[in-house]
Amino acid sequence: MRIVALAGGVGGAKLSDGLAQILPAADLTVIVNNGDDFEHLGLVVCPDLDTVCYTLAGLANPETGWGRLGETFHILESLHLLGGPDWFKLGDLDLATHLERSRRLREGQPLSQITHDFCRTWNVPQAILPMSDQPVRTMVQTADQGELPFQEYFVHRQCEPVVKGFRFAGIEAARPAPGVLEAIERSDAVVICPSNPWVSINPILGLDGIRPALSRKRVVAISPIIAGKTVKGPAAKMYAELGIQPSALAVAQHYGSLLSAFILDVQDSPLANNIEIRTCLTDILMNSRMDRRRLAQDVLDCIQRLS
Amino acid sequence: MRIVALAGGVGGAKLSDGLAQILPAADLTVIVNNGDDFEHLGLVVCPDLDTVCYTLAGLANPETGWGRLGETFHILESLHLLGGPDWFKLGDLDLATHLERSRRLREGQPLSQITHDFCRTWNVPQAILPMSDQPVRTMVQTADQGELPFQEYFVHRQCEPVVKGFRFAGIEAARPAPGVLEAIERSDAVVICPSNPWVSINPILGLDGIRPALSRKRVVAISPIIAGKTVKGPAAKMYAELGIQPSALAVAQHYGSLLSAFILDVQDSPLANNIEIRTCLTDILMNSRMDRRRLAQDVLDCIQRLS
Repeated sequence: MRIVALAGGVGGAKLSDGLAQILPAADLTVIVNNGDDFEHLGLVVCPDLDTVCYTLAGLANPETGWGRLGETFHILESLHLLGGPDWFKLGDLDLATHLERSRRLREGQPLSQITHDFCRTWNVPQAILPMSDQPVRTMVQTADQGELPFQEYFVHRQCEPVVKGFRFAGIEAARPAPGVLEAIERSDAVVICPSNPWVSINPILGLDGIRPALSRKRVVAISPIIAGKTVKGPAAKMYAELGIQPSALAVAQHYGSLLSAFILDVQDSPLANNIEIRTCLTDILMNSRMDRRRLAQDVLDCIQRLS
Repeated sequence: MRIVALAGGVGGAKLSDGLAQILPAADLTVIVNNGDDFEHLGLVVCPDLDTVCYTLAGLANPETGWGRLGETFHILESLHLLGGPDWFKLGDLDLATHLERSRRLREGQPLSQITHDFCRTWNVPQAILPMSDQPVRTMVQTADQGELPFQEYFVHRQCEPVVKGFRFAGIEAARPAPGVLEAIERSDAVVICPSNPWVSINPILGLDGIRPALSRKRVVAISPIIAGKTVKGPAAKMYAELGIQPSALAVAQHYGSLLSAFILDVQDSPLANNIEIRTCLTDILMNSRMDRRRLAQDVLDCIQRLS
């Protein structure tokens, strides 16, 4: 079964790893959000993309789910001493990725090509595609502080500002990266990972041609919300601030007619009755690599039941 | 005695450290070559400036005379794995300097101000001034490979190409950094460190106003060549390739009428007779911090004898 996964950061990386543990490498393509990319210290940093790549490469820190295994922070410490901007926790190994990627981008190489080459270096056999080679930057519209670049909101202000909406700067000019639409076209099903619907998945869905391509496919989403709370990140807080009761139901309604089926946690089984499409109930929390594989198998089983 | 030292990298840093061990901090200003600055991985790297700063800060690696004490190379190793340019050996601690300096330069802050702030952070009480806030880039004109940027010649090609001449790109538009001419004006003597005359000192001397300012001062140079050989670096090779017998005599003639006195190694005492200005003979090799102090004292004594 050929699967395309749409992924943000940690949740997307974990489920992608689960799928990668089951599927032949050639049958999995992960399309990753780039809305949270940003320029820091003159470098292009792609947090979601790197989290997915590091995770599938076995290079990710298993404690945090992001960042690199055996990472050191010598540069960050020196930068702190110099009074430089140290709010974004760049590790030394990670920084090499940003330096080399930025160098190649300045040379005019597309992000998708660079990502392909890096993944080959890191022995990642699956295809990991940035959603676009053109920059798209998520801007968070806040109640009190105007529009904030995503990482400014997410890391620097730790999601404290109240959210009023989102803007994906550059999305009109951006096109899906080479291979993205083709991978969806060739796939047997598309999995929307348990990532933040507003800031991880919406940027991908907002790209020209993605929704029409998905409408021709079986699409299954996994709730990033369990019992009204997000496992990680501000998705639940965002729903509440936008006037929507945060729940798996809200996520299902968010994706609406795009979905063929929706996977939610057994804790939320009462909500399943209010979801109009087919639902699959399982334990969607992924604490271990085994959990990732187990959830991925549940996702594949759910897809199979759709045929 | 207020001293201004003109310095390149390792030799300049060592003698500056010797002077700093003797003089009150307020009485020493080091003006550093920036002709070897270059752009690498999108960052502005200032090798000579950093070597002098790290040395006076006590942060330099005593084994190499350049680079940082306790340095790690995690980024360089990762960069190597990614196939990135790893020919310039950037350490992790050092890289923080380049990242923060480059960030500030992009914001429009002058190099002299950034250097001042870094030195305050590093507890360097002496004034260390870049020669100019405007970029000057030493280009090495070679017999077979055209014109090479200095670090390309020096590090990447390890000084192998045969030298035909030098060009200091940008020097016409560059001005001495704030404080440079004032420090020379206020000084009792100027010390030209045992640095490469062609690529470390000539860029400083080529700046508008430097030679006239020096002409009003006692100027003492220390030979970087002992018994026809350089302690470190390509100065002797450059003299030979330019058709000049490499020797302390050649260095004295290089600076010519700029000098009030010339300091050469006791091994070269026969040459002293051919040098028309006053000479001081001493052991100019600096293997230890004690050596640096000893040579600095000899330099100060030589200056004192000029009065």
